[in-house]
Amino acid sequence: MWKVVWAVWLSVTVCGHRADPEEGGGEPSLGHVSVVIVGSTGDLAKKYLWQGFFQLYINQVSSGHSFSFYGGGLSPADKAKPILFKILKGVACSKDVSAERCALLKEQFLRLAQYKQLNTTKHYQELNTQLRKQITQEGLTEAGRLFYLSVPAFAYTDIAKKINGSCRPATGAWLRVVLEKPFGHDFHNAQTLVTDLANSLADKEMYRIDHYLGKQVVSGILPFRKENKKFLDPIWNKHHIERIEIVLKETLDAKGRISFYDQYGVIRDVIQNHLTEVMTLLTLSLPANLSNCDDILQNKLKIFSVLKPLDKRQAVIGQYQTYNAEVQQELNKTKDHVSLTPTFAGVMVHIDMAQYDGLPIILTSGKMLDERVGYARILFKNDIFCVQNYKSIYCKPKQIIFYFGHGSLHYPAILVTKNLFKPQLINSEWKEVTEHKVVSVLGLPISDYYVQTPIVQKEAYTELISQLYHGRKENFISAENLLASWSFWTPLLESLHGSFPRIYPGGADNTNLLDFHLQGQEVKFSSEAVVMISQDMMGGAASTSFQTMQGKYKGTDMVSAWSEDLVERLAADMQESAEAAVREGGTFHLALSGGSSPIALFQRLVEHHYSFPWRDTHVWLVDERCVPLTEVDSNFFHLHNNLLAHVRIPYTNIHPMPVQLNQRLCVEEDRGAPLYEKDILHLVNTSSFHFVLLGVGYDGHTASLFPGSQVNHGDSLVVLTESPVKPHQRMSLTLNVLNRAHKVAVLVMGKSKHELVTQLSRVKDDPKKWPITGVQPNSGKLVWYIDYDALLG
Amino acid sequence: MWKVVWAVWLSVTVCGHRADPEEGGGEPSLGHVSVVIVGSTGDLAKKYLWQGFFQLYINQVSSGHSFSFYGGGLSPADKAKPILFKILKGVACSKDVSAERCALLKEQFLRLAQYKQLNTTKHYQELNTQLRKQITQEGLTEAGRLFYLSVPAFAYTDIAKKINGSCRPATGAWLRVVLEKPFGHDFHNAQTLVTDLANSLADKEMYRIDHYLGKQVVSGILPFRKENKKFLDPIWNKHHIERIEIVLKETLDAKGRISFYDQYGVIRDVIQNHLTEVMTLLTLSLPANLSNCDDILQNKLKIFSVLKPLDKRQAVIGQYQTYNAEVQQELNKTKDHVSLTPTFAGVMVHIDMAQYDGLPIILTSGKMLDERVGYARILFKNDIFCVQNYKSIYCKPKQIIFYFGHGSLHYPAILVTKNLFKPQLINSEWKEVTEHKVVSVLGLPISDYYVQTPIVQKEAYTELISQLYHGRKENFISAENLLASWSFWTPLLESLHGSFPRIYPGGADNTNLLDFHLQGQEVKFSSEAVVMISQDMMGGAASTSFQTMQGKYKGTDMVSAWSEDLVERLAADMQESAEAAVREGGTFHLALSGGSSPIALFQRLVEHHYSFPWRDTHVWLVDERCVPLTEVDSNFFHLHNNLLAHVRIPYTNIHPMPVQLNQRLCVEEDRGAPLYEKDILHLVNTSSFHFVLLGVGYDGHTASLFPGSQVNHGDSLVVLTESPVKPHQRMSLTLNVLNRAHKVAVLVMGKSKHELVTQLSRVKDDPKKWPITGVQPNSGKLVWYIDYDALLG
Repeated sequence: MWKVVWAVWLSVTVCGHRADPEEGGGEPSLGHVSVVIVGSTGDLAKKYLWQGFFQLYINQVSSGHSFSFYGGGLSPADKAKPILFKILKGVACSKDVSAERCALLKEQFLRLAQYKQLNTTKHYQELNTQLRKQITQEGLTEAGRLFYLSVPAFAYTDIAKKINGSCRPATGAWLRVVLEKPFGHDFHNAQTLVTDLANSLADKEMYRIDHYLGKQVVSGILPFRKENKKFLDPIWNKHHIERIEIVLKETLDAKGRISFYDQYGVIRDVIQNHLTEVMTLLTLSLPANLSNCDDILQNKLKIFSVLKPLDKRQAVIGQYQTYNAEVQQELNKTKDHVSLTPTFAGVMVHIDMAQYDGLPIILTSGKMLDERVGYARILFKNDIFCVQNYKSIYCKPKQIIFYFGHGSLHYPAILVTKNLFKPQLINSEWKEVTEHKVVSVLGLPISDYYVQTPIVQKEAYTELISQLYHGRKENFISAENLLASWSFWTPLLESLHGSFPRIYPGGADNTNLLDFHLQGQEVKFSSEAVVMISQDMMGGAASTSFQTMQGKYKGTDMVSAWSEDLVERLAADMQESAEAAVREGGTFHLALSGGSSPIALFQRLVEHHYSFPWRDTHVWLVDERCVPLTEVDSNFFHLHNNLLAHVRIPYTNIHPMPVQLNQRLCVEEDRGAPLYEKDILHLVNTSSFHFVLLGVGYDGHTASLFPGSQVNHGDSLVVLTESPVKPHQRMSLTLNVLNRAHKVAVLVMGKSKHELVTQLSRVKDDPKKWPITGVQPNSGKLVWYIDYDALLG
Repeated sequence: MWKVVWAVWLSVTVCGHRADPEEGGGEPSLGHVSVVIVGSTGDLAKKYLWQGFFQLYINQVSSGHSFSFYGGGLSPADKAKPILFKILKGVACSKDVSAERCALLKEQFLRLAQYKQLNTTKHYQELNTQLRKQITQEGLTEAGRLFYLSVPAFAYTDIAKKINGSCRPATGAWLRVVLEKPFGHDFHNAQTLVTDLANSLADKEMYRIDHYLGKQVVSGILPFRKENKKFLDPIWNKHHIERIEIVLKETLDAKGRISFYDQYGVIRDVIQNHLTEVMTLLTLSLPANLSNCDDILQNKLKIFSVLKPLDKRQAVIGQYQTYNAEVQQELNKTKDHVSLTPTFAGVMVHIDMAQYDGLPIILTSGKMLDERVGYARILFKNDIFCVQNYKSIYCKPKQIIFYFGHGSLHYPAILVTKNLFKPQLINSEWKEVTEHKVVSVLGLPISDYYVQTPIVQKEAYTELISQLYHGRKENFISAENLLASWSFWTPLLESLHGSFPRIYPGGADNTNLLDFHLQGQEVKFSSEAVVMISQDMMGGAASTSFQTMQGKYKGTDMVSAWSEDLVERLAADMQESAEAAVREGGTFHLALSGGSSPIALFQRLVEHHYSFPWRDTHVWLVDERCVPLTEVDSNFFHLHNNLLAHVRIPYTNIHPMPVQLNQRLCVEEDRGAPLYEKDILHLVNTSSFHFVLLGVGYDGHTASLFPGSQVNHGDSLVVLTESPVKPHQRMSLTLNVLNRAHKVAVLVMGKSKHELVTQLSRVKDDPKKWPITGVQPNSGKLVWYIDYDALLG
């Protein structure tokens, strides 16, 4: 019935529909509302949902709507009814309701609520019949039906299908189906879930709940940013913020939930959703109007689109010591079963936007830590120099803390250090706290902060149930949002697959075992692990303690090491050449190849070689594909994105090959190759590059000199060539100029090159068959850099 | 006799001359050494010099040398002798000398020392005769003569002349003349002093003393860096260091020294010399061999060559409250005399090297502060995320402190926080301190540091006198070093001239009055001044509280303001256009002019518009001079250095004009103009730039369209033109394409443009006579940005 594809949704409004008459909006039209909680006797329902719906009932009992509440579940009624009754008896009124009125309301609520077994299609049909009958009998019109699916995700599709097939409300009434996380396990799985649900439900009918968005402090983030815009605008950027920390610490373990938890782990459980949502709220561009939920959603998506991709170097993971035994027990595993599921993770995220460029955003969560607390902390840079009186507030750290609750403070609050500014209250539902007991919050006494807190503390679920009822979607997770988040986290989860978490004892005993360092783009545990996973658990994992090795290959020098060490060494050698060249002649001429192997080298140069003399370096291309420089097929494109864009090299020192002239590509008569040749002759002394980096293809080609084609180009330095693979047209340096270089490095990496390396070691030099064998510098030095994978297979 | 010019010195070795037989070096040849202190009864001589020479005598008495000591001065002998005698009686032995031996040595020393009036040439001739006579009589050979000029700088040239003319030692013996700071008052003055002295003394004969370099901790900086190289190398850079602070705080006032001090102030008194020297030692590239003084000197000079120029926005200055009254009194000034001499300064220095790029180096000193202390502090970035146990040492600040003395610690030491590394001792003359009384050093308890201190504390002057004697020059200031330092500081001193220092009460009462903020490239006092200099002292200084004004000029929109505000506004308008264009079409096409006015705009964009959408901006040139892009005459050169090199704009979005093709400039047949035109047609929608920035010349030219030449270029978008001034050949956009722009901004700044602005407002539009009047966008908007200087004269 509802076939909507993901691609279409991207442009579809999924926000509140106040202008939509069938939706009710802020002022619900009169009529009957049926609420169905599927999974009505589960933990969540027991703890939060029934209470939330009772609160809704209290608030709306005089709104003109009538209500009925169904607790659904797989169990037959006779078994479930007493359980449900016990839960319903437990709901409570807020303090502003008198005991008398509370008793009355509770009695009404109990009367309106009933259990209904919901298992088969027939059950849903029965429910539908029952709802219709009641509405007709009481002479009501139907306003809408709300299904709250408090069940495992695998059941969603089936239930949605049954609702769609048998239990839609009358025409003109709304249908809202609430889904609890987890929404999937990774990107593909989430996408499947989204697509499957779309067969039964329209996107606007689905409300994906992340209860963090119902927390008062979390939903206060955007209003706080808006109310305090004039203070925040000048400082809400990389120039002023040192780091952002988003932290959710738990003291509990995963006992009793292992069958769920062991499949998910901490990143899927709380980081992909709760902490990521908070991150987007902290960093999205504030729309002019906060009540425009579409703008908020669009701006959230923009943040996802500029998050720098993560790999495992940006994460540390841990597992509390007794977790594995709990897994063995709850999942009935043998004693040699090892779970690698992390119960702790610290991840450093970067946003690739000028405003936040380089600013570390740390997302951390774990079980079995020393305290229960959740907060987001914006720590500002220390930009004051205190000449005297170091202990004054002006000399202390400046920070803004969104304190979600628990911890030393015990209540939700937004705190701004007094050396920043005096914040405006978010709105009339918040108050300033001026009297506090002595307590320290993130390193500073509470008296150093301006503190605001909600006047009335509200439960997140209660808040979200109220928003559900009003059809307000800004605090629910849209499909785009969901998939964007999964597409961000999935590569990290995959790259962490099989990694051993650091084992930690739990609680205060963890001491500093889980602290981690931010090192450029990477994070690392600060201390050596004191509790190591036993060696035999690691099985045959390869040790990485091999040293860099120097040897001979094809009669010339070779350096070999594991790939990371090899790249480190090559980068160091390159810098050494650069420094020597600059010392001698003031300039370093470097010719670089395309392909994927050099990318690791480029990154290494960017992140570790801050003293590389870029200002005096000229960068040339060894070869280029005949495509515009702005296209992903272009060698220059990757060179630019991975290296040139990140170092301070003058524009005029960059020499892309002129493959595009007169708006066309590699046309002989445009004379691009001779042009490049002239540039080389003009700038490079005796046309001898100081350093040439080459790769070698499976077929033995190097630069864009391919087997079977001409390799002797006479005096030419630059020529147009043909590649056997697309794009066919290439521009390339010739062996003539390559062999004039002072140093030529040939970089070969990866198991897939092992056969080639073996073969090359055996063949005679025959440049026509194996172009790489024609690289034999006249007076310079040739060095092979081959990693162990390529060398040893 | 010694005519050496400054330019030649630059390549001359000025370091130790151990290989030079006449110099003596580490193993002095036997013979007689005469020491002459000119100014021998002054404060410095009394306090340090005689004691230093006595210590030298003690150390060298058995070396085989013989000694004589002369106290020289302007006073006649009968007046000065008793004073000198009293000083000499006061010298003391170090603790390792027995009382008996000390008494003997002191008696000998007193016998070898005598007073000699040194005023006229004749006095110097007499001294020479006396020295020769003594040497001959005692059958000695002369090893060398050491003159220590402890006199005001103005007397140097004259004394040097007299020494050179009348008092040189015998052939083969060395001459060393020691000069005390201040070495000049600014660059030109220092240069004159250097040149004048060069008429009398060879550079290798001059020893310019900066006693800070004799402090054990200061001279320990390089050895410390070398001994701990393996720890420091990975962290001694912008990625790890948050800031460097070099601080010299005094509690004393300037009373009694005002006649000197009021001419100098704190920057000339201690920052230009002591603190700057420490800064170079902390940042220079470590030479492989620390005993190679030439390498050290060269590397010091390299640091000077890459210091970013300072202006007054990088400094804050203060004056203690009673200073002005002290000036009035000591200099016999009337009550309305106001001295602007700063007694406090905080300066932020940046080094333009990849290693230190963006790293703030703060140099601060002041009188009448709360404590006496001197230190250099390397504060590292907070790169750890502490999950628990925040109070552990691992979670605390990481810093290395070179503690020169005094302060809370009371002794000189090098301190490294224990969360960094355990440093090696510098050498056997240093010891680790493991037992301390409880004291806090720069925010951390002493127990958080590894501490090393010299086993024997030595007085700086004593140290330097010993080095003088051994002819070791590495801890003296070379002429190049001196002039490099002055050439760095002089522009700041000039730009601060006439600035009002903040008045501070002195001592603990200063509270946070002198604290300052680092804001990007600027520093500012953090708090509002509570003690303000009275308004009438400020005379008629122009208020800068005028607002930006909007009006009409030549029938179109005009924005006017003081230049700084105007640039701020123009930058904001440009960003607004950029954001709108990117929002609408994904790309912003910006065409920029050359000239000097836009440079302030470029800097503003770089420093304040971090969210400018550079990634989606294409930068074009309005016009270009026919010179290579790498030359200073090129418009692109300035655009690159002031803007493009500092923002993250993709290489392929930068469009310099192709004025150089085939290694030649603006040759018609190379078809550079049509090439640029094609690029515009290809990339810029309807050839309509979103924003064009123009200037206007005194003759009314704009772009490179000059009066009297052709202004109608038909359909051409880009043409070659001729300028009346060199370089004559230009490439320029035409009125045709300029008038297609969405917005054209004409920026006019400076008093010198006032006449032009007045004239232009009156003339009729006549593009042939006044090319700027041809700028009339067809459907876009023209806005004049004229500063008050240009508008109001």
